[in-house]
Amino acid sequence: MTQSRLFCDIGNTHFYFYDGEKSYKVKAEGFDLSSITSDVYYISVNDFWERKLADEKNWINLRAMVDFSKYYGSMGIDRIACCEAVEDALIIDAGSAITVDKVKNGEHLGGYIYPGFNAMAKCFKDISPRLEVSFNFDIDLATMPKNTRDALSFGAMSPLVSQIREDSDTKAVIITGGDAEILLPFIPHAVIDHELVFKGMKKILEGKA
Amino acid sequence: MTQSRLFCDIGNTHFYFYDGEKSYKVKAEGFDLSSITSDVYYISVNDFWERKLADEKNWINLRAMVDFSKYYGSMGIDRIACCEAVEDALIIDAGSAITVDKVKNGEHLGGYIYPGFNAMAKCFKDISPRLEVSFNFDIDLATMPKNTRDALSFGAMSPLVSQIREDSDTKAVIITGGDAEILLPFIPHAVIDHELVFKGMKKILEGKA
Repeated sequence: MTQSRLFCDIGNTHFYFYDGEKSYKVKAEGFDLSSITSDVYYISVNDFWERKLADEKNWINLRAMVDFSKYYGSMGIDRIACCEAVEDALIIDAGSAITVDKVKNGEHLGGYIYPGFNAMAKCFKDISPRLEVSFNFDIDLATMPKNTRDALSFGAMSPLVSQIREDSDTKAVIITGGDAEILLPFIPHAVIDHELVFKGMKKILEGKA
Repeated sequence: MTQSRLFCDIGNTHFYFYDGEKSYKVKAEGFDLSSITSDVYYISVNDFWERKLADEKNWINLRAMVDFSKYYGSMGIDRIACCEAVEDALIIDAGSAITVDKVKNGEHLGGYIYPGFNAMAKCFKDISPRLEVSFNFDIDLATMPKNTRDALSFGAMSPLVSQIREDSDTKAVIITGGDAEILLPFIPHAVIDHELVFKGMKKILEGKA
């Protein structure tokens, strides 16, 4: 029986683990390294933790195994890992930011970045206290809004959905990230895959990426 | 010879004047009321100034003359004035927030709110210092971006443009507001009208709205 490897995707606020069966998250702040003694294959967009883990023998940084020539220089390694997981797909990672990447025949065609929904809500509030709302994600995007809450909810969601509709000439649309469930009802034919980043990490580790 | 009336649209940060020939703005903070002795017909989204001006005899608030039954309750009076100016148009007001409103046969069909470009840049920076950029507004929206600056610029601009393309089944697309010039190259057949709000105010005053 093969022992499953432990994977970890380190973000700005959390460690996201995948043990081959289930995924779970642990707060980055105050994370206790001694709580894990097995080998951990990880990627990190978090500079602080990446520096700290460089001295830990059982934490193996997959950054060294990535073929960066296929991607642009400053692209986040979590976005890269998601792209490595697929051959043909539009990948939407809906987290603190929403990244949208297009992969065709294993080639990254590019991608863009949109504010996450929490960031968008804060953005509206920062413009004016009159624009502070909790979004209504049950809105009908086919109807022009007629109240402030819907006007802001529509403004946060509908332009992104319109853009994705134009992008999605790829075979599959895969949504991942903490806000994937919010976005799903608005994107026809999309599927959710919360383990996409780990699938890419596994391919990177096995040299199949 | 008719003396031209003086109009003023009071925003969160500035007083925007129109004297019948030219428009100009003055900072709201520290604005000296004694600098104007003639009658001023104004609208305000700025609660502080609207309260303060209620006691000034030569400042005439147009709010009392607006037929609000045509609009939703919390809609900004500046958006309403712009809508009053047209019979058939998609109106884009690109300021600290970007509002998009559709008017058909003089009826307001609804509208939505999107962050202004300054607010969007701050929003990205607040998500992560890695996402701090000055936007590149020379980007080609037909190509998926391949660097962080373009990925953020595309994410700020292209979803809105995609949405507007879906909205613009009206006869005209009119752009107004401080960032109108940034948006114009991306919206086919659009025109800029920086005096739209004052045209609406004039119609409200003359009872033709």
